[in-house]
Amino acid sequence: MPQYTPPVRDTRFVLDHVVKLNNYTNLPSFAAATPDTVDAVLEEGGRFVAEVLFPLNQSGDQEGCTRHPDGTVTTPKGFKDAYAKFVESGWGTLSAPEAFGGQDMPHVVATAFQEFMVSSNMAFAMYPGLAHGAISALRVKGSPEQQQTYLPKLVSGEWLGTMNLTEPQCGTDLGLIKTKAEPQADGSYSITGTKIFISAGEHDLTENIIHLVLAKTPGAPDSSKGISLFVVPKILINADGSLGERNAVSCGSIEHKMGIHGNATCVMNYDGAKGWLVGEEMKGLAAMFIMMNAARLGVGLQGLAVGETAYQNAVQYAGDRRQGRALTGPAEPAEKADVLFVHPDVRRMLMHAKAWTEGLRALCLWGGLQVDLEDHAETEEERQAASDLIGLLTPVIKGVGTDKGYEIATNAQQVYGGHGYIQEWGMEQYVRDARIAMIYEGTNGVQAMDLVGRKLAMNGGRAVQAFFAMVAGECAAAKGDAATADFAGRLEKALGEMQAATMWFMGNIANPNNIGAGAVPYMHLTGLVAVGLMWLRMAKAAAELKAAGEGDAAFLDAKLVTARFFAERMLPEAGSLRRQIEGGADAVMALPPEMFRAA
Amino acid sequence: MPQYTPPVRDTRFVLDHVVKLNNYTNLPSFAAATPDTVDAVLEEGGRFVAEVLFPLNQSGDQEGCTRHPDGTVTTPKGFKDAYAKFVESGWGTLSAPEAFGGQDMPHVVATAFQEFMVSSNMAFAMYPGLAHGAISALRVKGSPEQQQTYLPKLVSGEWLGTMNLTEPQCGTDLGLIKTKAEPQADGSYSITGTKIFISAGEHDLTENIIHLVLAKTPGAPDSSKGISLFVVPKILINADGSLGERNAVSCGSIEHKMGIHGNATCVMNYDGAKGWLVGEEMKGLAAMFIMMNAARLGVGLQGLAVGETAYQNAVQYAGDRRQGRALTGPAEPAEKADVLFVHPDVRRMLMHAKAWTEGLRALCLWGGLQVDLEDHAETEEERQAASDLIGLLTPVIKGVGTDKGYEIATNAQQVYGGHGYIQEWGMEQYVRDARIAMIYEGTNGVQAMDLVGRKLAMNGGRAVQAFFAMVAGECAAAKGDAATADFAGRLEKALGEMQAATMWFMGNIANPNNIGAGAVPYMHLTGLVAVGLMWLRMAKAAAELKAAGEGDAAFLDAKLVTARFFAERMLPEAGSLRRQIEGGADAVMALPPEMFRAA
Repeated sequence: MPQYTPPVRDTRFVLDHVVKLNNYTNLPSFAAATPDTVDAVLEEGGRFVAEVLFPLNQSGDQEGCTRHPDGTVTTPKGFKDAYAKFVESGWGTLSAPEAFGGQDMPHVVATAFQEFMVSSNMAFAMYPGLAHGAISALRVKGSPEQQQTYLPKLVSGEWLGTMNLTEPQCGTDLGLIKTKAEPQADGSYSITGTKIFISAGEHDLTENIIHLVLAKTPGAPDSSKGISLFVVPKILINADGSLGERNAVSCGSIEHKMGIHGNATCVMNYDGAKGWLVGEEMKGLAAMFIMMNAARLGVGLQGLAVGETAYQNAVQYAGDRRQGRALTGPAEPAEKADVLFVHPDVRRMLMHAKAWTEGLRALCLWGGLQVDLEDHAETEEERQAASDLIGLLTPVIKGVGTDKGYEIATNAQQVYGGHGYIQEWGMEQYVRDARIAMIYEGTNGVQAMDLVGRKLAMNGGRAVQAFFAMVAGECAAAKGDAATADFAGRLEKALGEMQAATMWFMGNIANPNNIGAGAVPYMHLTGLVAVGLMWLRMAKAAAELKAAGEGDAAFLDAKLVTARFFAERMLPEAGSLRRQIEGGADAVMALPPEMFRAA
Repeated sequence: MPQYTPPVRDTRFVLDHVVKLNNYTNLPSFAAATPDTVDAVLEEGGRFVAEVLFPLNQSGDQEGCTRHPDGTVTTPKGFKDAYAKFVESGWGTLSAPEAFGGQDMPHVVATAFQEFMVSSNMAFAMYPGLAHGAISALRVKGSPEQQQTYLPKLVSGEWLGTMNLTEPQCGTDLGLIKTKAEPQADGSYSITGTKIFISAGEHDLTENIIHLVLAKTPGAPDSSKGISLFVVPKILINADGSLGERNAVSCGSIEHKMGIHGNATCVMNYDGAKGWLVGEEMKGLAAMFIMMNAARLGVGLQGLAVGETAYQNAVQYAGDRRQGRALTGPAEPAEKADVLFVHPDVRRMLMHAKAWTEGLRALCLWGGLQVDLEDHAETEEERQAASDLIGLLTPVIKGVGTDKGYEIATNAQQVYGGHGYIQEWGMEQYVRDARIAMIYEGTNGVQAMDLVGRKLAMNGGRAVQAFFAMVAGECAAAKGDAATADFAGRLEKALGEMQAATMWFMGNIANPNNIGAGAVPYMHLTGLVAVGLMWLRMAKAAAELKAAGEGDAAFLDAKLVTARFFAERMLPEAGSLRRQIEGGADAVMALPPEMFRAA
């Protein structure tokens, strides 16, 4: 039986010593995030998801969703009930504004809870997760009337929401959208078209579903510049706020997928559905990016979160399963065999998982803080700095977080040997679930192009220069301290590789394919440095606490050992990545397409 | 609809220019492998599997196998009929000895066919694949009577066979086996116990199934030294060769797995089943290793084979799907978007797949040749050399072949974006199928330990020294030629990293955990050098043919470009792997197990 324990201690450590929550008590929201409140969120919220959502994770995968002939969709057994409890508990409203019924906590605290929720049940967590995107877009771009109509019930969870971008002929390239929006005399639009891969497009969890839909108005340019955003409720809302008629939007079918079976992935048919413009006409892409950037951070977190659960189970199995003997001689001679923990290669996989999940947790929470600071820091300079950093690192958190999540899940499955391949043990589900996160909200290749094609050069490279300065400064400072000097030296070397790769891009941009061919290696190089910085901060904090005789010594020692593992085992890849980038586009692009064919 | 075309042209190129079949016409079997015969095997055999087996691959995955209440198991629709055609066609008997009804072709030719068969339908190919292991063991260790009883019908395919090793409490650690074999008055043994994960343990393809079973005789030591091998037919065979009574072996259940759904993975219950000792008592492990080594090469080939099919489909999609524009400006301005092929990151994934599938194909076929030479080369020295090399590289072919196969399948799925996650498109099946190959026949971690813990040091390091000399010699020779000098220099550098890592192991063996902690990186380092050597040979042959004005220039150019890609993009990892190895075991092994737990 798979198991899951929310990593409260590690999250607390990151919030205290990497994010340093108590440095921000001057800011709105943060004042309410007292240590006691945060503890309650982590402890109680963690308990809720582990007790209510995790038990439905494997059964939800096995049962999946069902579409009925009338177009209704039922979620797996237990989901509806669990969702009602989730709404009642209020855990979904942590960071929403009080004006719309939220608890107005910092985004970073909600991020911590979100990890636990996804770890418990990724397919379930996607239902409220998609609504968060809709909330973000309406908060920023919705009219006051739209906000009043939709936000309170979306925030409370009484309604859920979706993002409708993809169509059969277009995913990444939204300029190809065909869905049409015809203006009506009453100021609404008539929406017609087919959207595919719509997560949570139809289900039985809520009475209403608020769809945010990209479509083109008559005469709009045939490119991404012609896209507008519309809000299209499943059930129309009467003037008094009560539910009215069924709108002309329906679920045509649900997809049979590799994983996340508990979440309904729908083909949505819009047949003259009534919708309302959100924001300005033909500015839909910008509005969508508001949802998208939040969603990308959330997807990066999914990688870590699924990896964490897979890792925890591998740890459990490594302690239970006896097979073979330690290379150094029997560890438990009285037993017929030693536990898997004695085998260095099993340890290597577990340490890899530990180093990446803890490092990515720190990066995701640090990223959550930047989202808060971007909105709420006291000075424009601080807000700008946070905005630059999170803009730069959003594609890295998404791309590296999900690539590593899949790798961790695959390794965790490997620890189980043959049992990992059998559904009953639950490990193969984590691999199947983790896989989608590398694809949706922009494939990881698209993330890498966002990083090198857009973010690097923005404002004359201001963001990446600030990132370099931050890492270099912390390395320089840490090199003076014996406890962190070795780590800082190795991180500085990896930073040097990243800087060299950046320079190489600048010198070779005449052929833009050089940028494209190096994009994914560069994203991973940036991920190594960014997660490396988080490990430097964790190692520094651990060393300082230890020196001060504070904290749990075993926990702090583990942090220092894991930082060392990251330095010795992960950072060396930086040099290889740089050399791959410097290979450039020639060999990548040289072959005519027919030379890829077998015959 | 997924598609598959046997890569006949590339296989022919490898057989002619890397394996150099025509150098061995002096050897038994090889004389019969004339170019015309080999062409017929590749063309006709390839056509057979593509037309008969591939159409059942996706439907077989979706339907899976069914165990009925009476313990019988039916394979997916079409499998039984296809198997009858397979037996009739004789494609399964290519390399079996004429004495038992085989065609006595070289193993390397059968290996080429085997790749096509697995590419077409891995779950199907496993049925005859498992029988091959049984054939190997009986050929080497079976008594003349056993050989006469079982081999003709196993070779013809009239019967199939299995390998029964794993039990609930033991997989890797076969010393823990509990299945008992009690000697009977008639010279047979009564076998009692439970075996799990038995591929093709029960099915409807053949009338009889010949199980090879590891068990312990009374009083045998409680370790792997106490294991004996038995042959246990599902249906007992009468003295006249006709089928007699049902034996007391039955399928208790079949597993629900992540993939290879078309192959029945069985729990086999032996309830006093009649069996006969194969070879000597308590020498079962050695006998099993005969099956195992052949099987490991076959599993390495599975990685490549599934990767190949996934890659071919990604190539097809990259040419069909239009999305976005080339970074260098619209490639086809008249179309609304360019095909995926224009995007460097898509190319990067396709070139990665091309470089590894073609490189692994060469390595697997070269490995097949070593198996032939080990048995049939004219001098003891040549036989020994081949045996050393294939012994050293068997775990590398298995471990690297399957890790790369999974990576290729994952990347190919990624090329499809969201469509890759949907069952209908067929790509996610390749990932699920490829995943098992990293686990069974010894996990890849076990392969790596076989390499560094056994093979490296055998006979004073004779095998690895011979490998070093071979690679160094070919690099030195190729550096004199402008067409291959750059590649040879880069491969020489990777070889240097491997030699340094080998030296590091020797200097740090006092703590054997240092070996275990570096085993998997070392296996991949060896894989880079071994596949690199294959690319050097392919590049050299391509350059020579081009200079001579022979062959298809576009095909030869593609070989040279792909070699360059391998050198620029893959070989740089060697340095990172070496540094990971040199990290040693300290950080890997330092933590007490409880520090891996979340709470």
